[in-house]
Amino acid sequence: MIVILKQNASKEKVEELKKLLLQRGLKLHLSDGEETSLIGLIGDTTQIHEDELKALEVVEDVRRVSEPYKKANRKMHPGDTVIDVCGRKIGGGHFQVIAGPCSVETRDQITQVAKDVQKSGAGLLRGGAFKPRTSPYAFQGLGAEGLKLLLEAKKATGMPIVTEIMRLEHLDLFEDVDVIQVGARNMQNFELLKELGKLDKPILLKRGMSGTLDELLMSAEYVMAGGNEKVILCERGIRTFEKSYRNTLDISAIPMLKKKTHLPVIVDPSHAAGIRFMVEPLALAALAAGADGVMIEVHNDPERALCDGMQSLTPVMFDDVMNKIKRVLEPFGKTF
Amino acid sequence: MIVILKQNASKEKVEELKKLLLQRGLKLHLSDGEETSLIGLIGDTTQIHEDELKALEVVEDVRRVSEPYKKANRKMHPGDTVIDVCGRKIGGGHFQVIAGPCSVETRDQITQVAKDVQKSGAGLLRGGAFKPRTSPYAFQGLGAEGLKLLLEAKKATGMPIVTEIMRLEHLDLFEDVDVIQVGARNMQNFELLKELGKLDKPILLKRGMSGTLDELLMSAEYVMAGGNEKVILCERGIRTFEKSYRNTLDISAIPMLKKKTHLPVIVDPSHAAGIRFMVEPLALAALAAGADGVMIEVHNDPERALCDGMQSLTPVMFDDVMNKIKRVLEPFGKTF
Amino acid sequence: MIVILKQNASKEKVEELKKLLLQRGLKLHLSDGEETSLIGLIGDTTQIHEDELKALEVVEDVRRVSEPYKKANRKMHPGDTVIDVCGRKIGGGHFQVIAGPCSVETRDQITQVAKDVQKSGAGLLRGGAFKPRTSPYAFQGLGAEGLKLLLEAKKATGMPIVTEIMRLEHLDLFEDVDVIQVGARNMQNFELLKELGKLDKPILLKRGMSGTLDELLMSAEYVMAGGNEKVILCERGIRTFEKSYRNTLDISAIPMLKKKTHLPVIVDPSHAAGIRFMVEPLALAALAAGADGVMIEVHNDPERALCDGMQSLTPVMFDDVMNKIKRVLEPFGKTF
Amino acid sequence: MIVILKQNASKEKVEELKKLLLQRGLKLHLSDGEETSLIGLIGDTTQIHEDELKALEVVEDVRRVSEPYKKANRKMHPGDTVIDVCGRKIGGGHFQVIAGPCSVETRDQITQVAKDVQKSGAGLLRGGAFKPRTSPYAFQGLGAEGLKLLLEAKKATGMPIVTEIMRLEHLDLFEDVDVIQVGARNMQNFELLKELGKLDKPILLKRGMSGTLDELLMSAEYVMAGGNEKVILCERGIRTFEKSYRNTLDISAIPMLKKKTHLPVIVDPSHAAGIRFMVEPLALAALAAGADGVMIEVHNDPERALCDGMQSLTPVMFDDVMNKIKRVLEPFGKTF
Repeated sequence: MIVILKQNASKEKVEELKKLLLQRGLKLHLSDGEETSLIGLIGDTTQIHEDELKALEVVEDVRRVSEPYKKANRKMHPGDTVIDVCGRKIGGGHFQVIAGPCSVETRDQITQVAKDVQKSGAGLLRGGAFKPRTSPYAFQGLGAEGLKLLLEAKKATGMPIVTEIMRLEHLDLFEDVDVIQVGARNMQNFELLKELGKLDKPILLKRGMSGTLDELLMSAEYVMAGGNEKVILCERGIRTFEKSYRNTLDISAIPMLKKKTHLPVIVDPSHAAGIRFMVEPLALAALAAGADGVMIEVHNDPERALCDGMQSLTPVMFDDVMNKIKRVLEPFGKTF
Repeated sequence: MIVILKQNASKEKVEELKKLLLQRGLKLHLSDGEETSLIGLIGDTTQIHEDELKALEVVEDVRRVSEPYKKANRKMHPGDTVIDVCGRKIGGGHFQVIAGPCSVETRDQITQVAKDVQKSGAGLLRGGAFKPRTSPYAFQGLGAEGLKLLLEAKKATGMPIVTEIMRLEHLDLFEDVDVIQVGARNMQNFELLKELGKLDKPILLKRGMSGTLDELLMSAEYVMAGGNEKVILCERGIRTFEKSYRNTLDISAIPMLKKKTHLPVIVDPSHAAGIRFMVEPLALAALAAGADGVMIEVHNDPERALCDGMQSLTPVMFDDVMNKIKRVLEPFGKTF
Repeated sequence: MIVILKQNASKEKVEELKKLLLQRGLKLHLSDGEETSLIGLIGDTTQIHEDELKALEVVEDVRRVSEPYKKANRKMHPGDTVIDVCGRKIGGGHFQVIAGPCSVETRDQITQVAKDVQKSGAGLLRGGAFKPRTSPYAFQGLGAEGLKLLLEAKKATGMPIVTEIMRLEHLDLFEDVDVIQVGARNMQNFELLKELGKLDKPILLKRGMSGTLDELLMSAEYVMAGGNEKVILCERGIRTFEKSYRNTLDISAIPMLKKKTHLPVIVDPSHAAGIRFMVEPLALAALAAGADGVMIEVHNDPERALCDGMQSLTPVMFDDVMNKIKRVLEPFGKTF
Repeated sequence: MIVILKQNASKEKVEELKKLLLQRGLKLHLSDGEETSLIGLIGDTTQIHEDELKALEVVEDVRRVSEPYKKANRKMHPGDTVIDVCGRKIGGGHFQVIAGPCSVETRDQITQVAKDVQKSGAGLLRGGAFKPRTSPYAFQGLGAEGLKLLLEAKKATGMPIVTEIMRLEHLDLFEDVDVIQVGARNMQNFELLKELGKLDKPILLKRGMSGTLDELLMSAEYVMAGGNEKVILCERGIRTFEKSYRNTLDISAIPMLKKKTHLPVIVDPSHAAGIRFMVEPLALAALAAGADGVMIEVHNDPERALCDGMQSLTPVMFDDVMNKIKRVLEPFGKTF
């Protein structure tokens, strides 16, 4: 971290600042220029927030040189983290496809979709029981009943399941869930992240709609700081000015996250696009850019889906996408 | 709501769609053009999500004509809602200043700041006990202890207090809090909003960093749908490409929200700017644009603040801002 | 186009509006609901701007149903446009790689790079002679001299060349240029677009940093309306909140543009990323998502490049990317 | 400027870098930490682009400490620049109102509006002759004929005029124009800016729709570097995710620009809002935030305006806004 001092900073105040920084266990490196004087901070600066120093009268500006995250940082952990969900590996060359409906609706629906996507090669089953909806008047998911149906589908197929949590009090209900999803709107629900950090279960953490990569990594850090290092990051589209699609898939996030962190990175092309015909090209692009997996919405009857039917594939369409993925998996250096 | 049909839509499928819509209790208005055929939906369309219809094969696009919010809508409630907090009125020509430190730090600090801002004319006291921080390694607030100190400051001065909730389990601790704040990061924490809708206490709802006005109003609707209609909206700056200030105050939101809703609208210039010298011009601009109040961070020793010192005013600076506000309150048609 | 009338609109004023619209040669379709009355406009609405109608007292809102562009619209021209540049085809299954340095610097540099990228399989040579730079104090390109050197490299290798125009007065200098590039900052330089519409030469039109797809297509329409239908669209990254890379490649733009228009769509991963290591994954993602080509910056000595060295590949790195592209070209249904 | 070196940078390469920087006339300040080594550059760094250094193998990152603009920088010119347009002063406590129609349409229209706004207290007349329109099929302005009519209105009223240039070849036509406007879409039309830098005439430079303040100032620097220091900056709304208004007025830009630069800063509430009822609150907010003037669209018959009627005030409405401005001008420390 570099502290840039004001041109007219009094010697006394600067000495005070130096004392304060030394007390925090940092070493200081001074550099006095004609126009600008700097203090370089050496040591663990993750404990210091830039704004804290900017509040000081003598400080002109503060620039962070090292990353504010530790456990998620690839510099601390050069090898890829591989997360194993009941034998399905994600990361380190292992590509996984998570598929299923937006919402769990009926026993038949979720079990049938599970069987279909499994046959096509999906490794994990997704399905929403608790749904975050913009309107209080919209369908909010089947809740606990939905979770029960999802677990039945798991039993029927043997597929591990991924589903979203929206409220800490529900945590007990998630005991048999294999991967707990944190939705984009909760990326900075720090209280939720802290509690998930106490579990020993993979967390699929979605990037917020206008969150930066460093913010996503800081949210992963909240979970990891609690002791749970099994975090899967998920790029699901960001908000931009473009109105032709619901969100804009940030494909650049994939190579950059792979550089910044050792955690696996997957992509949700269904939510990113919000439109069925774009799911295939975006899923292939995710693979080409280096993602460790994709999460795709599949519904047996998208026209009658209670939620997000517009972006759901039919099982037949999904099978087609899977075939295309299989054809390029090897040249892109991945295996299922 | 207008449903635009695909050019080649089969008659059969269109009939199916019409039946579906009639079942929802809507009246339909058909309009067949050479190139485009439309169905206008008449009735309560707040129960229908655009995407649900877009999922249908015969539908090209859907355009909402009426607003998706009901209770927050000014059309349903033309007069201004005036919220009374222990005798301090907000809305309907009543302008309130909420002031206090970002975080409660010590008994002396919060009580002293309370007395100072009260003397200058602030009506309510703010202070954070539970703090949402980007980094798990940063100061997270004093928690329950902070709330206790805040209540002591209330006792000492008689000022009603505003403070942020981050977790439903804490709700009991907030019994004597006068206004519960929902932070920007929780604007779409729908589970939290639902519970706050069951209380009989004003809720100060902050706009999310990249939330639209309609999303903010839908979040207010979540609270109001539960029965609690005492919602105060707060514009606190949005995320933009500009890096010179922490956020960009969306001043246009004020006249537009006043048109869309009957709820009071206040502005937080401190968080919007993130820099001390901008607080005064932004507070005055908020008043000029028609806001019902401002929320300003004041700290007795900003250089040693544990949080957001950079944007906090000293009591002396705050007094100066209050004097400027008082001078133009009347020409802008407001009273304290 | 649908005109939504105000609830309390006077009959007289509505009649006036209807007369006005009929005079424009449109047919009208009326739909009177209890709460909302609509007028559907049938005919060529590209001549009407939404805002023009919104200015009227009786109009509540206006929604466009059909696209505002005609010549660029795939509905008017279902087959892919294939652009032939001296025998190199772009579009309709033909994938082209355009490569070369950001700026032309010396005769040796441009000719050597041309030979290198040609050997690796690039079809066209790029190189900037006139450079748009944020700072007036930065290197502004070699100008006319640079164009001359670029033409020499064309002669030496037989590769057609692509270079950017910044000023109408320079048009004469571009006579032997094969493809004229319009940079992102000039996407809405309408006067420039109008003049380029009078040429019979392919125009490579880059999307503005915060331009929408419809705005890009309207800019293409400016060129096409003048008679020049040889427009190649180029996605080069948009501005977002993410600071880890210069721009954010909007990969979703590719399938959506291919749906909206018949024009070829290429991607510039070098400018999108601004960082060398991201060029390969983004180029492959572009191909996977359906792009008709990529434009990649290659420099013989990136560390000494006068411009954008940070994102330039060496010829060896470029050769490696080309090999990866060749390996997946066929499964993605493309040929060089 | 601070250069952060890679951890494993070879001594040899670092020496090479140091030599390169010394050759540019800079002094260097080295600081070797355990984890990070830095080089502080002292001297005129406006000639160096960050990306140029980032291209080097040994460089991890580059942080600019001083601003990249010189002539526009308040540090070089602490007092406010006051621009005098035929006796109307802008800046340094002088507040000016520029008013007139979006487009010049007829002699009667422009002359009548000019008389009306003059009577209400406007100091300068605006009116577009050349109009940048998103669609090639929309009204493009009266062109040279429009300029002629505008000059007649100037003659009739004595008001100096402001109008937009879109093309260098038109420069001759602008000889009698008092203030030349550069539109938002041309903020980075560097060739245009360079030529305007050779004039001795005030330039009203509008901020681009997603331009940052530093980019705006670098564009001002293009004009000033050419010798023309009479630049008036204009905030006219930025693009955000909010769809209720055309653009979002960045009110925070006013105090920040006043800190960064000595140039006058005005606001265009009409284009920022795009809706009539918002013009008044935004104009007052601009004044409250410290702007040096506002530019307001006024049309004698907004419902029949050929352009932007939706946001134009009638002369009666404008008179009302002027009265409100006059009432608070003095408490905000401004005079006409």
